[in-house]
Amino acid sequence: MPQTPHIERHFTGTETVRDIVIGMSDGLTVPFALAAGLSGAVAASSIVVTAGLAEIAAGSIAMGLGGYLAAKTDVEHYASERERELRETAELPEVESEEVAKVFREYGLTEPQMAPVVSAICKDREHWVDFMMRFELGLEPPDPRRASRSAITIASAYVVGGLIPLAPYMILPSVSTALRYSAAITFLALAVFGYVKSRFTGISPWKGALQTVLTGGLAASAAFALVKLIE
Amino acid sequence: MPQTPHIERHFTGTETVRDIVIGMSDGLTVPFALAAGLSGAVAASSIVVTAGLAEIAAGSIAMGLGGYLAAKTDVEHYASERERELRETAELPEVESEEVAKVFREYGLTEPQMAPVVSAICKDREHWVDFMMRFELGLEPPDPRRASRSAITIASAYVVGGLIPLAPYMILPSVSTALRYSAAITFLALAVFGYVKSRFTGISPWKGALQTVLTGGLAASAAFALVKLIE
Repeated sequence: MPQTPHIERHFTGTETVRDIVIGMSDGLTVPFALAAGLSGAVAASSIVVTAGLAEIAAGSIAMGLGGYLAAKTDVEHYASERERELRETAELPEVESEEVAKVFREYGLTEPQMAPVVSAICKDREHWVDFMMRFELGLEPPDPRRASRSAITIASAYVVGGLIPLAPYMILPSVSTALRYSAAITFLALAVFGYVKSRFTGISPWKGALQTVLTGGLAASAAFALVKLIE
Repeated sequence: MPQTPHIERHFTGTETVRDIVIGMSDGLTVPFALAAGLSGAVAASSIVVTAGLAEIAAGSIAMGLGGYLAAKTDVEHYASERERELRETAELPEVESEEVAKVFREYGLTEPQMAPVVSAICKDREHWVDFMMRFELGLEPPDPRRASRSAITIASAYVVGGLIPLAPYMILPSVSTALRYSAAITFLALAVFGYVKSRFTGISPWKGALQTVLTGGLAASAAFALVKLIE
């Protein structure tokens, strides 16, 4: 029985796909909803475009840097927890080997069954610490080069997503006409995005499409209603 | 040796703290940067406030629903993967028990050492599948009630964060004066937020404060520069 196809079936999207999804979800939704909301208050497309582009600049940088810092923090957090486990296996070996035993006890192993396993794992410091990191703390070693790649992917996806709902306001001088075109192409883009996205998360594609369209619609309606209320 | 304080030292923030951090990071940054950007183009505080509130409505709903859907997807993804593992332990038991063995082999166990452990784990279907979920796929069982709580926490944090930079524009009629006050209180809020946040991620608090302030400053500067460029 070959192993590869079996592993493949559990595939749920690479980190790049995840970063694109993070950036594009908000990129398609927030600039669209902001532009729709402002359409209820201003007569000139140019103000909607200015606000929309300012939002795209702000949002893409905030999310991109957010992704960068999150990835950097993961790396530092992993390193500091690993340091601590290394120290603890030296200072409190009996506590730490008991924690290895605890993991196996949860799976119904008896003490005589687990004794050789625990001592085999604890014999090698690297194995011991890796075991604690993964099975006690649930931490996987993060990729240290991921941060900048992640930042660029998230920010680019946000910009691409955000320019779609703004395009009609850039072309058409009438805000109300632009709003209708913006809503139409954004809903289409959200549906396609939701459909494609759900292939990576394992949920039904039509449900995925409905979810992203509803999210965009709700955010835009709320922004529009709020602006009308202020007027 | 008591176990509790040992576990406590690994504490890295509950899910609620994480949701507050997610909502507040963007809530403090994006509405601030958008308002700062628009300050370069419009003379009336009222347009900045309208755009800012529209952004808060759009951003809080987009992020809140995003958190809701992510949590729901986690639950569905876990359930479908668990279903698959249940099926596979029935249909391909020898492949699945070999995968249990593979986990132990990585930690330097010999075949005679792991044989009783593997057969003990595979004796009980629940233990077997739980072991595969956690150790082969690295998936922890998600809390099914988390989705709506997560959505409300993220959205509320976004609204609270977003109202801080907007407050000066609501009070002061002059956009340029409001921008100065907005920058001052937002940078203070970002510094406090970054300082407090880093206590949960394990990085140095001053570094955390610097990171959030720089992110906010960069996003606002980019939005301001872009708006000036359009003008």
